[in-house]
Amino acid sequence: MPTLAPVIAFDADDTLWHNETIFEDVHARYRHMLAQYHDSATVDRTLFATEMRNLDLYGYGVKGFTLSALETAIELSEGDISTNELSQLIALGRDMLAHPVVVLPGVAETLAALASTHRLLVITKGDLRDQERKIAKSGLTQFFSHTEIVSEKNADAYATILRRHSISAPSFVMVGNSLKSDILPVLALGGTGVHIPYHLTWEHERADTPQANDGRFFTVKTISELPSLLVQLGMGG
Amino acid sequence: MPTLAPVIAFDADDTLWHNETIFEDVHARYRHMLAQYHDSATVDRTLFATEMRNLDLYGYGVKGFTLSALETAIELSEGDISTNELSQLIALGRDMLAHPVVVLPGVAETLAALASTHRLLVITKGDLRDQERKIAKSGLTQFFSHTEIVSEKNADAYATILRRHSISAPSFVMVGNSLKSDILPVLALGGTGVHIPYHLTWEHERADTPQANDGRFFTVKTISELPSLLVQLGMGG
Repeated sequence: MPTLAPVIAFDADDTLWHNETIFEDVHARYRHMLAQYHDSATVDRTLFATEMRNLDLYGYGVKGFTLSALETAIELSEGDISTNELSQLIALGRDMLAHPVVVLPGVAETLAALASTHRLLVITKGDLRDQERKIAKSGLTQFFSHTEIVSEKNADAYATILRRHSISAPSFVMVGNSLKSDILPVLALGGTGVHIPYHLTWEHERADTPQANDGRFFTVKTISELPSLLVQLGMGG
Repeated sequence: MPTLAPVIAFDADDTLWHNETIFEDVHARYRHMLAQYHDSATVDRTLFATEMRNLDLYGYGVKGFTLSALETAIELSEGDISTNELSQLIALGRDMLAHPVVVLPGVAETLAALASTHRLLVITKGDLRDQERKIAKSGLTQFFSHTEIVSEKNADAYATILRRHSISAPSFVMVGNSLKSDILPVLALGGTGVHIPYHLTWEHERADTPQANDGRFFTVKTISELPSLLVQLGMGG
């Protein structure tokens, strides 16, 4: 029997901790490295096109990003980039994987409060080992009953997770920064979506704000507003 | 309550389909590419050392292998390798990911027979998306009740899977080609391990054959021998 007590699931990158800021920093160095060959807009556009072309094979995450960045650097320099610069790119990828996890303000307090009354999950996509490492490094593990790392966050993936944990869609709340990955597929299944915008959004994750939503779509500014929203929704635990 | 009906879990790479042969082929091309700089033994040894150094950050799988191969090529050539050759390496990595899945002899028939009487699982490690793609391409999906893709196959990972699926260790049989990843951790938990050697073993997966095993460790030549072994063990379903 699916449970009726509300279950709250959280996206990880840019919802629980900073992530896109790390990519932004690497993008800035990348533009600088290729500045002698092309302007920033061309570098950004070509790298994004390479990432999208490789997405089906590579999936999400830092390793696929690094491989696409190497491929694009050789392409945009017409092979003139030095192997020393390519080594720097490989090292930059490793630095991204080893980067400290910086938890967003209010996250630890809010999770601690909610964990005493609700079952909490993490649902994230990307490299398996990288996501596991970040969850471990975040110091937030004890608040979650399960962590689900998927290769794509679409309605099928969410439906599989709800089935596995015997959660009914009306009792399921997904909290995240990406309308495309965290909100739209959950609304499609009949769940509730709480959007917490991050100040940066990767182009691939952009989507229009949902219109009709039957009172199941909400936006808050920070995670600290989540407990009172849940109380308003009659899901306060 | 943990179930008492035996559950049979299968490793994927080199147990259900060929995998190490693809790596062997790529290694041969790699040695050829670097032959002007170093002999084969040095190339192999240095690449393996790079992979081991990066394993904690990259985890298992083709993308991490490709990044380590690029790094090692630049290192062994002291930066003299051409960007054209590095592009070829990146393309070789993509070819590995797009490679057809060649199922081993007897696998489809054996799984079809066992699936009618047992609950079957796949437990594999590596890139999330790559492993999902291979399972889908294998045409074997319908025989498995669940697929578990983990970042490391140690006793903790197996214990988590047994808990999640309510399987008791004495009712659990793991079938695979790697003593280190498929057999030893399962024996340590009190389960049964069936080793099916593959003709190639990646150096990192090598381990000594278990000695004391309380009648819980078996070796068969091919997967076709598995059903009669299970009958002998009183686990014939």
